[in-house]
Amino acid sequence: MLILELTYIECAKALTSLRLGRLACSRDDQPYIVPIYFAYHERHLYSFGMPGQKIDWMRSNPRVCLEADEIINHHDWTSVIVQGRYEEMPDTAQWSLERTLAHELLQHRAMWWEPAYVRTAHLEAESDLTPIYYRIYIDQMTGRRARPDPTDVVDPVTPVTPATASQSESRLKSFLRRLWLSAISASPP
Amino acid sequence: MLILELTYIECAKALTSLRLGRLACSRDDQPYIVPIYFAYHERHLYSFGMPGQKIDWMRSNPRVCLEADEIINHHDWTSVIVQGRYEEMPDTAQWSLERTLAHELLQHRAMWWEPAYVRTAHLEAESDLTPIYYRIYIDQMTGRRARPDPTDVVDPVTPVTPATASQSESRLKSFLRRLWLSAISASPP
Repeated sequence: MLILELTYIECAKALTSLRLGRLACSRDDQPYIVPIYFAYHERHLYSFGMPGQKIDWMRSNPRVCLEADEIINHHDWTSVIVQGRYEEMPDTAQWSLERTLAHELLQHRAMWWEPAYVRTAHLEAESDLTPIYYRIYIDQMTGRRARPDPTDVVDPVTPVTPATASQSESRLKSFLRRLWLSAISASPP
Repeated sequence: MLILELTYIECAKALTSLRLGRLACSRDDQPYIVPIYFAYHERHLYSFGMPGQKIDWMRSNPRVCLEADEIINHHDWTSVIVQGRYEEMPDTAQWSLERTLAHELLQHRAMWWEPAYVRTAHLEAESDLTPIYYRIYIDQMTGRRARPDPTDVVDPVTPVTPATASQSESRLKSFLRRLWLSAISASPP
């Protein structure tokens, strides 16, 4: 396996095709992570969430980090790490354009409306179900991509298999993953 | 979809079956995330990594957060969030037992030796390739599990499909995912 650093443009391209990421915020140097759905657009990541710990912490400390990846298998993956700043987009005239944009961007995400709208086992009151729209301004962005490299001896435990068998296996795994991804992203009729 | 809170024991059980997580550390209230492979054992998460930003930051501030999940589809997922403390396990007599345990635990992870051992495009010197073994002592652990709930109207955009079609689709997706996961975790001959 060979690991390559991605350029800024390659990172942006990868983020455009990803929708699920893990967002970390921090308060008093205690980090906290949650999975989020997002949409990348012009140096910003757009998302929304329900009021709670994540929103409270980002309001008090806007510095955040997001990691998003696509893992085909352990020899073939892409991972992008963003460091940025939380910007809330309240329902005011000032943020009207950004909120419309966010709504448009997030509609292209099959899962954009979940899990923020769902009721939990605690059956929260209707009044709590107002989502907070926000975006992350990207300060820094780095990424890595791993690709199989048949010349590497990467594993002292498992013997290296012939390239042809490995390639077939890799293609099968990739095919299964694409099949699974297309199944979960397909809109219901 | 109904979201249920997991008990401590359910979180521990979920972590036992997971191997990939996202670890967040923080320095001067700037969070940072990286994907890691881990093994859960008796209130600790065992892992290892190469020297770098993640290790430096955890040495200076041991408070960390790890999120691990299994996402079958957007109606059917489990997510566990751990808050804990970094403990380095240096190659000394004092940590000998824990290092042996870590090695044993991580051997059961098909990917335990990657990506820490791989050479990067920068072709780092051999002397840099000494992994740092560490574990996370779990201070707090919470988890949520989402399950499809046919009585919910969760989506104002997409019409609700009949339960039977939705269930077949869910079973197909679940099957494809299991097929893909078994393909990527199978050891080469």
